[in-house]
Amino acid sequence: MLNKYFSEISTPIKYEGKDSKNPLAFRYYDKSKVVAGKTMAEHLRFAVSYWHTFKGDGTDIFGGTSFERQWNQHNNSMDNAKATLEAAFEFFQKLGIDYYCFHDRDIAPAGESFVQSCKNLEEIVEQAKVMQNDTGVKLLWGTANLFSNPIYSQGGGTNPNAHIMAQALAQVKNAIDATKELGGENYVFWGGREGYETLLNTDLKKEQDHMARFFEIVIDYKKRIDFEGQFLIEPKPAEPMKHQYDSDASTTLSFLRAYGLLDHFKLNIEANHATLAGHTFEHELAVASVAGKLGSVDANRGDYLLGWDTDQFPNDLHSITLAMIIILKQNGLGTGGLNFDAKVRRSSYDTIDLFHAHIGGMDAFAKGLLIANQIIEDKVLDDFVDDRYSSFNEGIGADIINGKVNLEQIEDWVKENDKPQLKSGRQEMLENIINSYIF
Amino acid sequence: MLNKYFSEISTPIKYEGKDSKNPLAFRYYDKSKVVAGKTMAEHLRFAVSYWHTFKGDGTDIFGGTSFERQWNQHNNSMDNAKATLEAAFEFFQKLGIDYYCFHDRDIAPAGESFVQSCKNLEEIVEQAKVMQNDTGVKLLWGTANLFSNPIYSQGGGTNPNAHIMAQALAQVKNAIDATKELGGENYVFWGGREGYETLLNTDLKKEQDHMARFFEIVIDYKKRIDFEGQFLIEPKPAEPMKHQYDSDASTTLSFLRAYGLLDHFKLNIEANHATLAGHTFEHELAVASVAGKLGSVDANRGDYLLGWDTDQFPNDLHSITLAMIIILKQNGLGTGGLNFDAKVRRSSYDTIDLFHAHIGGMDAFAKGLLIANQIIEDKVLDDFVDDRYSSFNEGIGADIINGKVNLEQIEDWVKENDKPQLKSGRQEMLENIINSYIF
Amino acid sequence: MLNKYFSEISTPIKYEGKDSKNPLAFRYYDKSKVVAGKTMAEHLRFAVSYWHTFKGDGTDIFGGTSFERQWNQHNNSMDNAKATLEAAFEFFQKLGIDYYCFHDRDIAPAGESFVQSCKNLEEIVEQAKVMQNDTGVKLLWGTANLFSNPIYSQGGGTNPNAHIMAQALAQVKNAIDATKELGGENYVFWGGREGYETLLNTDLKKEQDHMARFFEIVIDYKKRIDFEGQFLIEPKPAEPMKHQYDSDASTTLSFLRAYGLLDHFKLNIEANHATLAGHTFEHELAVASVAGKLGSVDANRGDYLLGWDTDQFPNDLHSITLAMIIILKQNGLGTGGLNFDAKVRRSSYDTIDLFHAHIGGMDAFAKGLLIANQIIEDKVLDDFVDDRYSSFNEGIGADIINGKVNLEQIEDWVKENDKPQLKSGRQEMLENIINSYIF
Amino acid sequence: MLNKYFSEISTPIKYEGKDSKNPLAFRYYDKSKVVAGKTMAEHLRFAVSYWHTFKGDGTDIFGGTSFERQWNQHNNSMDNAKATLEAAFEFFQKLGIDYYCFHDRDIAPAGESFVQSCKNLEEIVEQAKVMQNDTGVKLLWGTANLFSNPIYSQGGGTNPNAHIMAQALAQVKNAIDATKELGGENYVFWGGREGYETLLNTDLKKEQDHMARFFEIVIDYKKRIDFEGQFLIEPKPAEPMKHQYDSDASTTLSFLRAYGLLDHFKLNIEANHATLAGHTFEHELAVASVAGKLGSVDANRGDYLLGWDTDQFPNDLHSITLAMIIILKQNGLGTGGLNFDAKVRRSSYDTIDLFHAHIGGMDAFAKGLLIANQIIEDKVLDDFVDDRYSSFNEGIGADIINGKVNLEQIEDWVKENDKPQLKSGRQEMLENIINSYIF
Repeated sequence: MLNKYFSEISTPIKYEGKDSKNPLAFRYYDKSKVVAGKTMAEHLRFAVSYWHTFKGDGTDIFGGTSFERQWNQHNNSMDNAKATLEAAFEFFQKLGIDYYCFHDRDIAPAGESFVQSCKNLEEIVEQAKVMQNDTGVKLLWGTANLFSNPIYSQGGGTNPNAHIMAQALAQVKNAIDATKELGGENYVFWGGREGYETLLNTDLKKEQDHMARFFEIVIDYKKRIDFEGQFLIEPKPAEPMKHQYDSDASTTLSFLRAYGLLDHFKLNIEANHATLAGHTFEHELAVASVAGKLGSVDANRGDYLLGWDTDQFPNDLHSITLAMIIILKQNGLGTGGLNFDAKVRRSSYDTIDLFHAHIGGMDAFAKGLLIANQIIEDKVLDDFVDDRYSSFNEGIGADIINGKVNLEQIEDWVKENDKPQLKSGRQEMLENIINSYIF
Repeated sequence: MLNKYFSEISTPIKYEGKDSKNPLAFRYYDKSKVVAGKTMAEHLRFAVSYWHTFKGDGTDIFGGTSFERQWNQHNNSMDNAKATLEAAFEFFQKLGIDYYCFHDRDIAPAGESFVQSCKNLEEIVEQAKVMQNDTGVKLLWGTANLFSNPIYSQGGGTNPNAHIMAQALAQVKNAIDATKELGGENYVFWGGREGYETLLNTDLKKEQDHMARFFEIVIDYKKRIDFEGQFLIEPKPAEPMKHQYDSDASTTLSFLRAYGLLDHFKLNIEANHATLAGHTFEHELAVASVAGKLGSVDANRGDYLLGWDTDQFPNDLHSITLAMIIILKQNGLGTGGLNFDAKVRRSSYDTIDLFHAHIGGMDAFAKGLLIANQIIEDKVLDDFVDDRYSSFNEGIGADIINGKVNLEQIEDWVKENDKPQLKSGRQEMLENIINSYIF
Repeated sequence: MLNKYFSEISTPIKYEGKDSKNPLAFRYYDKSKVVAGKTMAEHLRFAVSYWHTFKGDGTDIFGGTSFERQWNQHNNSMDNAKATLEAAFEFFQKLGIDYYCFHDRDIAPAGESFVQSCKNLEEIVEQAKVMQNDTGVKLLWGTANLFSNPIYSQGGGTNPNAHIMAQALAQVKNAIDATKELGGENYVFWGGREGYETLLNTDLKKEQDHMARFFEIVIDYKKRIDFEGQFLIEPKPAEPMKHQYDSDASTTLSFLRAYGLLDHFKLNIEANHATLAGHTFEHELAVASVAGKLGSVDANRGDYLLGWDTDQFPNDLHSITLAMIIILKQNGLGTGGLNFDAKVRRSSYDTIDLFHAHIGGMDAFAKGLLIANQIIEDKVLDDFVDDRYSSFNEGIGADIINGKVNLEQIEDWVKENDKPQLKSGRQEMLENIINSYIF
Repeated sequence: MLNKYFSEISTPIKYEGKDSKNPLAFRYYDKSKVVAGKTMAEHLRFAVSYWHTFKGDGTDIFGGTSFERQWNQHNNSMDNAKATLEAAFEFFQKLGIDYYCFHDRDIAPAGESFVQSCKNLEEIVEQAKVMQNDTGVKLLWGTANLFSNPIYSQGGGTNPNAHIMAQALAQVKNAIDATKELGGENYVFWGGREGYETLLNTDLKKEQDHMARFFEIVIDYKKRIDFEGQFLIEPKPAEPMKHQYDSDASTTLSFLRAYGLLDHFKLNIEANHATLAGHTFEHELAVASVAGKLGSVDANRGDYLLGWDTDQFPNDLHSITLAMIIILKQNGLGTGGLNFDAKVRRSSYDTIDLFHAHIGGMDAFAKGLLIANQIIEDKVLDDFVDDRYSSFNEGIGADIINGKVNLEQIEDWVKENDKPQLKSGRQEMLENIINSYIF
């Protein structure tokens, strides 16, 4: 096992059971434990976010670098990139996690020219491929960073400058190539700059048309190169832009439906993006799942009282349990997984903090999986819900659903059948029941 | 002219011009003034909301009736309804407004039975028809109140009880009949209770299927009775429910697209609902307009710092100007109009406050119309926007848009054409220009 | 035991332990169980809110009464009041709760005149006194409803009309008299209408001066009648008003300090009011506690994604645990308690839902008490915090705190001692540790 | 006049009057125009923010530098600092603005050691002094940047590490020295990092005690060196911290009152911070003004729908008018002024955008001044407000205010004087009146 950058952890994090007082052990995440026919690892498919965990430096909008990472201290950006890759795989192994996710510019630095950037990426991909083979760690998804470079400040696929749209497309091509080369199981589009700062200078229709064209070009390429990974779109309402086009799950689905692109994408739902959009995490998961489009999850949490993407590690068992119920009921995430798009706080300076953070998130999801599975097995919610809608199984309910009555006939029936009975929704009891599984 | 309930106003409100100091005169709204080929009245198609203006009693969630309206003091609810109708038409005439909007239960009270409720409605509709003929005031739209009655506390079209869904449908039938009888130019669906309180007891898929079925039944009826009014859906994110299904414009469009219902509806966009959904008013208008689906507007305003529907009268000229630009550029609202879904504050006890409120709203939109028209005529925004996207008119931009290049060809072009030029979005200058039209 | 209105519950709710599957039993709340030297009942001092539980009718801003309570069906309002009192004490007994809280107008109806209202209140107080004696249930606090009556729509103590300020004062006198008569341990001021709707018509200085005068008059009265209950102020930022003067804990403390009233009041902190003000529940508790002013708690929860007072029953164990740590560390709430200022949802029509709701809240706080006590006993947070600030125990830290160095001396020291060591705040580890006590 | 960095502007921006179509001219800001006895320049005392305008590089949390400023391109940080100073004074002159504001680290770079940082600052201050003398531009206020350096990530004055608190104090000493040397009229404290990330590791009481001690040391120094500038505290609720201690005006006042520090400070109110705290800009101004503590203003605007500090240039005439009414009524800001703590958007790449932005803000405030003055002269609000509270001028109202009646006497009076008359608050009419001055 690699042992250079995280010397404070000498052996992989172990499962020690619920009563362990060791903060650097798992209390619930027992990788090979079988739940409902699959191991925990198969259910959860955890991934580390390369950008936050290895390239995050503690910067916030009011202050610079507060983390000094040994792997980022070289004079040459490619040397940093190579060292980072070593650190990353050491971390994966010590944490005992199976997947990672990256943006092209996380793993390899931009060069002086576009051509140089492509070369940098290719060189690092070769090294990553070797390390994946050596360790068994896999790529959950790759993506292109179309937001950091100032050329993208007015958008990538929706940039009013055709030259920049072309550059965005070319960059995506290389990111897809890299993802394919590394066996990435998905490819993600997060349109952080695809939106507007002000409607005063924006042609909303044109920008959406351009975005659709952008996707068509990429879909065509995907087919021609036989890249079999799932394309995922990740909704977010705002930040960095005033308003992003893929603002939430239903808005993204609406766009895909309007342009006939629905078959080519699933959604990557992020908890923090959901709450910034005014929705609960479980709402966005449910909207995507009901549409058959829940593909993957960015497992983090926001702060309900702060209005920006705090990207904290997930630790709210209640929310996680509701999420896992939705995921289990659609038989898992397929090629998707749970990516920790989360960062340690600016004052969590040490590399050990990265372990604490991931362990907390993994344990919370492992416990959530156990609870969710038990709730499903006990059918406590399902039975209640089935009964609640049972009036549609026969009589006027079935007739309405099956198209057997028109509006006049329904009116006639109502005139004969006044005064419906009201039946409590039992929200408080159901909330108590969920809590009885949690504590 | 009727003169019984608003004796403080003896003659219709007049246009007195910009410099008038009379708070009960219009300073900008000059009904017959022609702007861009249409009169102000034709452009703006203002409507009074029956519920707020005549049935609003000052109640809020922490206190009851604070307005004592003479027309609501009878012992019998039908007598109140008839008196209210007289008061309403007196108000319309004195204000000089051409349209009104109602819910079925605003104009006629619910009876002991569904049958009685239908009869009440029919009786009032007859009276209203006469008064419309006498005064020339028209019905912009009607709708059914599927939210006040406790039977709807778990939804109308999405109620888990089939009996209640049937009742909701039957009620809508009667509301459409009433609207048709009165020559209503549109019919609105606001699904205030179509949503959920908790996902724990909710089958999201089933409720959306039911809602679609609900609309199919109503569309079928509309066709068969030859009702030519436009069907409108009014989005809102929450309140009264935890989460409503038609949460914003794009979510509503997504639903309509998913169920093949798009051709049958346009949207009725409300300013306060937009901001509660985290969008600006102009964003929601633009989203609807770009989709060809901006049908009508609930012209009010919310309070950005309060999290509920404050339904205040519109008076923010900046926001109104941006709205009118969008409306003018799509050649108006067609059969739709600007409905003041707005109420005076709980401490504005007097009927004269109703005049102040409407006059303020009408004047603000009249001024907004004038400004918006001037901005469009001067092409200050259009020229800037055209230039901003001009790189798509030729070269690689045109090739991308026209499907003449695939991704590899685009990459090749980028490798030859590095370093795009950045061009300022000039947001501050454009904002200043808008302000230069306002003050 | 009374047994008339809640026949679905035949015996008092019992503690059945953690593994009970009975939704109508306590799993953690074991009234006489001793924790850290006091019984659970002594620690928690739970109270039922008379208004929500017995007078709440399911009304929301978009719909009327959805609960039909047997005790509110009489023709005469005083008959309803008497029946409600019976129902209330039956509920207290069956739930096994020791305290209740009321507004004057909850327990006795307003009469045609102020004098009649006072008589109504006196009559009900006599009956309540008997029932308290019979059952042992006590009054945690009383208060005057200075918000429902339309005369208060522009404020009570801050009303611009002196007549109404006088009426508010007179009403408070009677409410204090009633509270004293019933042995109430506290008296609460919630200034729901003490704020403004618009600054345009408001003299902010005058209204605050009036509010201070209002309190001075009441304090004078309290002393003269020897009422020994604690005066409490309950902060809230808005709703019903645009802006309330007691918007949060620190704002209320600032007012009390500015007018020399600090000694006469403590704060009653409500969870939902805290989050509406943009603060966490624990923040507001901590601010009050640090100032020595945490007197009592309204134990409920809001919905972070909804912008109004949802007044849901508390069930978030994480938040409750943090609250109980603060309460335990200040040695409890003294004469205060945990009042469930919470209501069942509009669709929870049945009286059994009232039991589910309270049981869930009581169990969550009982479990939170156990966890908080364990965390304190284990000193997991205290040791960490003590160490974190330990540099102030000696050297330059102690010198600064003890006033032994001036600014020039500090500068000199810094010039000699550059480059401070950074020490991680370990937020993620601490969050994990809290979770390890919860699940 | 300097002419090196802003060659696109060859002559100072001129006042051209309302009808000018020149976007680079003032339409309202006529520097020497006299309004209510003072020139516009004397009323408004505009200042440029050094950090945003000269050191802002377009960075946001998702992307780096998008502005390439000629003056920041040198290899050596002191060379950049000197060039920036030249650029700044050229900008001041071309814009025709009289004041600027800075943080120590804006005007001079941090050095390798604390001692070196002090030297850098002294060197730049000498140069600035010369340029001030040459141009007549003055320093409105200085401040110390206690937030960018990673040593402050856990606070400056509230840092748990005494070494860092000492460093913060020493840095403040030098910043005050610099401010004094440059004749700064105020000195500002913005406690961006004085707050907490999590209560789990925080001793709230201790941190507030430390902050008070911090201020005491600085006040002592101020007195001894005879620095006559006004000390100002600038409230903000959050960002960068989860929760800042000076969260809003009343919270800051509460702190100052609790620690006996009130006499030594006034407040610097920022519009964007106000709205982030859930208050309107005018609310915060009014709270400060009523307490006699409105000292200066950060004139910017936020975006109500975005949850972070967008720091946009002010352009909302309605809000500005309400602000100017409050400022005029307290006879101006004294030594304070209107500092544009605002930045151009990330895509406003060009230096010309800096001119557009400032011109828009200056013109909006100039127009707001004219309107506010007219409203005050016309007494439209004052007369209404005086009348609204007139019942306190005699009778029971005067008796209550003057302490002539106790609670029992008030009750007796109420029993004799039931049924107060309600008088409309006329909010809609007043809002219309304000609008009639705006458009």
